Amino acid sequence: METVLQSRTRTVTIGAGRPFCVIGERINPTGRKAFQAQLQAGDISQLDDDVAEQVAGGADMLDVNVGDPLADEIALMRAAVTRVQELTDLPLVIDSSVIEALEAGLAAYEGKALVNSVTGEDGRLEAILPIVARHGAAVIGLANDDEIPMEPRRRLEVARKIVSAAGDHGIPPEDVVIDPLAMPVGAEPRAVTLFLETARLIREELGVNTTCGASNTSFGLPGRHVLNAGFLAIAASHGLTSAIMDARSEVVVDGARAADFLLGHDEWGARWIASHRAKQAAAQA
Amino acid sequence: METVLQSRTRTVTIGAGRPFCVIGERINPTGRKAFQAQLQAGDISQLDDDVAEQVAGGADMLDVNVGDPLADEIALMRAAVTRVQELTDLPLVIDSSVIEALEAGLAAYEGKALVNSVTGEDGRLEAILPIVARHGAAVIGLANDDEIPMEPRRRLEVARKIVSAAGDHGIPPEDVVIDPLAMPVGAEPRAVTLFLETARLIREELGVNTTCGASNTSFGLPGRHVLNAGFLAIAASHGLTSAIMDARSEVVVDGARAADFLLGHDEWGARWIASHRAKQAAAQA
Repeated sequence: METVLQSRTRTVTIGAGRPFCVIGERINPTGRKAFQAQLQAGDISQLDDDVAEQVAGGADMLDVNVGDPLADEIALMRAAVTRVQELTDLPLVIDSSVIEALEAGLAAYEGKALVNSVTGEDGRLEAILPIVARHGAAVIGLANDDEIPMEPRRRLEVARKIVSAAGDHGIPPEDVVIDPLAMPVGAEPRAVTLFLETARLIREELGVNTTCGASNTSFGLPGRHVLNAGFLAIAASHGLTSAIMDARSEVVVDGARAADFLLGHDEWGARWIASHRAKQAAAQA
Repeated sequence: METVLQSRTRTVTIGAGRPFCVIGERINPTGRKAFQAQLQAGDISQLDDDVAEQVAGGADMLDVNVGDPLADEIALMRAAVTRVQELTDLPLVIDSSVIEALEAGLAAYEGKALVNSVTGEDGRLEAILPIVARHGAAVIGLANDDEIPMEPRRRLEVARKIVSAAGDHGIPPEDVVIDPLAMPVGAEPRAVTLFLETARLIREELGVNTTCGASNTSFGLPGRHVLNAGFLAIAASHGLTSAIMDARSEVVVDGARAADFLLGHDEWGARWIASHRAKQAAAQA
């Protein structure tokens, strides 16, 4: 099953036989005080640097989140999506917990976006899926409802409910990307094994594509980039097809790209070798 | 199933629920002209540095190979095994294609060694397994006979034959560690997926432990350490329980240790966090 996303001029396809889809996550004020203050003042100039860094790091898509409780998120999302499209032709993920902000972002976007996200809660499904359908977008479905199941089969059932509800709104399964829920392994030793088992069940029983917030896994731990890289390689080998991650870290992006090569999704290593040559050339320049 | 190896004073256990067993591979003259010349002159003083580096890098066991066509390998193996036991208490892998050298190494070793290796060829099985049995050692079985099967089920059948032949000589399955054959992904795009499928079959159908020469995968490619680290993390998540690898590379060893933590074999990350703190302390000293 293939999920096709588009900007005005570029198409990205997420799928099991494809290279892993790296969704740059940096356009997000979480934990960034200076950026939060700028957004509260209606200033989105920081996006220029953020977009450039994610693109340089090798992102395939960009997640756009301008959520701040003290800012006008709807106006900001409209402005941010407009500006990011001037800066890059990568397809976008429109990311907000505010339904009107999702709507504003989708209205400002020219192409087929990925909406981040809906959960299995009835109220969220009924509020968000009609917007996704109206804009011809795809959507990320988190495998939780009002609680986070710690049993892979229960996460699968939430995912199944989301795929089914999407179908009721005319959104086909290939336009639903399920997040099996990556959680901190420092807080729960089974976090990754639960994730892998959930991803396997989703792949085998629903056949849809998957994504996650990759850096959640290493929350609070030393050596985060190395843990994230290892997590991505492992998860890709168990069928994860994309992740929202910070493309500024070469170690982390390399984890995904190494997995592409090793798993036969970068035949003869064309992309791996070209990327390595470009780094060598840059180092010598 | 657990494979227990021992030196005079230390025990290492290879098993599916255990931390990945890192077998340091540096004590080997392949590709090292200066070391080859020393061995030809009967000089094994290089071992002091090689052992120290592998131990410092975090090896759990050490592979000892002193094979050189122009040297007296039997005498060298006897001397090397004796010397390495003075330098470290890590259990050893006695590695040679010369049966008399294996025998000399085992005779000089005090503990339970791992013999590297036997194949599925009748002549090799009949020559090597009696020696392994007589010394109460364990043995690595390569999943090939006179040819290298490119079908996972055929590799499984070779592995099954080795486990069965070992049993005929009184060597229990837990003392046979199968190598599913890691091959260069630059030469065969399916190399790793074949490996993973073979490892899965061996685990499910034979239940024995597995190992491989991890660096084979990246042969001839740029970014080898990163590819090797990704390969180890992926392979560990599919059940590989040990690998022969260069423990001098922090990137590669970290790939295996990150996998331990992520897969729940380093609960609460005790080893990962301690290792990171030690590195920070060393960097500040």
